[in-house]
Amino acid sequence: MQYASWMEATGEGFISEILKAAQDPNMISFAGGLPAPELFPDQALQRCFQRVFEEQGKSSLQYAQTAGHPQLRQWLAQQHQRNGKPVEAEEIVVTTGSQQGLSLLAQTFLDPGDVVFVETPTYLGAIQAFQGFRAQLMTIPCDEQGIIPEELETMLKQVTPKFLYLIPNYQNPSGKIMGLERRIALLKVAQAYDLLLVEDNPYGELRFEGERYPNLIDLGDQVIYLGTFSKVLAPGLRVGYVVANPDIINHLCQTKEGVDLHSNNLTQRAVLEFLNEGLLPGHILKLCTLYKERREAMVQAIEKYLGDDVDMIIPSGGLFLWARFKKINNSFDYVQETIRQNVLYVPGALFYPDGRVTSEVRLNYSCSTPETIEEGVRRLARAVRV
Amino acid sequence: MQYASWMEATGEGFISEILKAAQDPNMISFAGGLPAPELFPDQALQRCFQRVFEEQGKSSLQYAQTAGHPQLRQWLAQQHQRNGKPVEAEEIVVTTGSQQGLSLLAQTFLDPGDVVFVETPTYLGAIQAFQGFRAQLMTIPCDEQGIIPEELETMLKQVTPKFLYLIPNYQNPSGKIMGLERRIALLKVAQAYDLLLVEDNPYGELRFEGERYPNLIDLGDQVIYLGTFSKVLAPGLRVGYVVANPDIINHLCQTKEGVDLHSNNLTQRAVLEFLNEGLLPGHILKLCTLYKERREAMVQAIEKYLGDDVDMIIPSGGLFLWARFKKINNSFDYVQETIRQNVLYVPGALFYPDGRVTSEVRLNYSCSTPETIEEGVRRLARAVRV
Repeated sequence: MQYASWMEATGEGFISEILKAAQDPNMISFAGGLPAPELFPDQALQRCFQRVFEEQGKSSLQYAQTAGHPQLRQWLAQQHQRNGKPVEAEEIVVTTGSQQGLSLLAQTFLDPGDVVFVETPTYLGAIQAFQGFRAQLMTIPCDEQGIIPEELETMLKQVTPKFLYLIPNYQNPSGKIMGLERRIALLKVAQAYDLLLVEDNPYGELRFEGERYPNLIDLGDQVIYLGTFSKVLAPGLRVGYVVANPDIINHLCQTKEGVDLHSNNLTQRAVLEFLNEGLLPGHILKLCTLYKERREAMVQAIEKYLGDDVDMIIPSGGLFLWARFKKINNSFDYVQETIRQNVLYVPGALFYPDGRVTSEVRLNYSCSTPETIEEGVRRLARAVRV
Repeated sequence: MQYASWMEATGEGFISEILKAAQDPNMISFAGGLPAPELFPDQALQRCFQRVFEEQGKSSLQYAQTAGHPQLRQWLAQQHQRNGKPVEAEEIVVTTGSQQGLSLLAQTFLDPGDVVFVETPTYLGAIQAFQGFRAQLMTIPCDEQGIIPEELETMLKQVTPKFLYLIPNYQNPSGKIMGLERRIALLKVAQAYDLLLVEDNPYGELRFEGERYPNLIDLGDQVIYLGTFSKVLAPGLRVGYVVANPDIINHLCQTKEGVDLHSNNLTQRAVLEFLNEGLLPGHILKLCTLYKERREAMVQAIEKYLGDDVDMIIPSGGLFLWARFKKINNSFDYVQETIRQNVLYVPGALFYPDGRVTSEVRLNYSCSTPETIEEGVRRLARAVRV
């Protein structure tokens, strides 16, 4: 018995080690990317599931269309534009969380060894999804707004990737946001080189301050957009979606048919009920208020306990704060000590597919109270000074 | 922009054409594999979802473990044996339908070009799942009980496949069941050649008559077992599972993390409620009674309207009847005429990965009443005689 060769390359799950440690009730975890459970609209969702059972019980339990529930696709289409034009339902496929969107894109586009461009650093789950299809990941240099168009152009002169994957809003892990001019400049390079962009936007609605920018897909034609209800509603429901031109959507559906036939039918209908009740905007406001407070608490605790020992990027939205320890070399070396001190972070190295050594860490603030955040940062300061 | 090379090889979706035709309300479809919706236990499931919301609302909406809800894994473990020993929870991974089980196995085991052995004919969804990972499918000759051990052995002397995929109970599409002696003989060959077996068992509980045989995984050590609630409860919920040794389960989880992180958390808990209420055995009895009646109706209608024009295999369980038209060469040629006559089947060629021409067809009887079945077969007889 022999596993596929790509599995050896990815090695053992550090993530599982961290998740196991996180189960200790004394542990303060800044490692996950969990929404605050106390804000889950469980009662409203309960009503929505009830209504689906009462009005469409039998049909919601049957096999369904691979592309997703037609009315949910319709609703999602109405939320988007593609290159300035209204999006149609056939430009949407509903996915089992947006992690599945990443995996479907990889399977649909990548031959083994194909190049994918990513941000530096980039989302760990995207690295996993792409490596599962034997992609060769190449990192594009970034500044405080993300991908630098000139650097991208230099790379495109040497290599032809299948696509560039990026998170323009409150990037995971760096928390950065890309301004409007940068978006336009990036799209210009993409068009000149016939480059496909994969725009992942799980955090865009979680805006604490600053301007709201149009999505890349609103502005250009070469874009595949990934959306999800995991951060704005509930991740346990696993409802995400992809927006792209109909030919790409058809190919993604062809792949999805072999992968899981379709996503949970009942849940798609219940989410649609929630959306049709108009409950999402108010819920997002609540999330923004709470997460902003927690972001504040984390920034203050870092200033108080770590002060000049770290550089940090203060995020204007999303779930993560990215910090660099100035007096250590490798944040991986301190993981065991932080676990002993009952606090968890994700070492920055995991977000670099090139395997570099870094003293950066990703800190999540969305699922801890301000008090817990302060105590966690205090422990963190103790751990890195051992 | 260029899609992955495997997609070209699979060609356009004939399935989508049939599904589209099936939406016509005048159409009688024997093409799908749908459970009878009138028997879906929607009220019991509604209560189960309610209870989960009331007792575990917040936690059921949060991110969850990739391997599945711990108590559901525990429950499933208790239903199974592996090589005569009780199964533990860590030998279970919950999947997004058992279609995902097939896809995860392919991704976890197959390098491009690896050989997979399958039955002749075999399940279309398995062909799709394996081709999505560039498998080379090789068919093993079958008789009325499925895989012929001597033929398998002859093949194994020439080729080393990653695994053999088979459906021992009420096979899709042929409806055949493998007897106990055959199971033992097959496992003996597998052991001698260190061959991994993938045992897919969606229909085993839908037994109308005849003996119940132990699963291959009960009897041997070289087996990965795929189970699902799609046929015995509701496919729209997308809950399936895999049973295998812990090392294989860990590798499947590593793959699943990149594919969809985990399956719907809320739904897994609601299904567990349903199971804990002890409602499944009674529900399965109802299904068997209804499907047996419908199998009967289809056999009688075929005898009445098609008589000597077909050979058929009368299934003793499951959802499908496999028939061969004696007076035509290629059942694919009659698809357009049957659509004109408002009846649908799946042409047998789709179940042969070697692309052979056949006059066989797969007929589903589970989701039509006896009257509709009779009328459908009458139309079918008309269509093939045009």
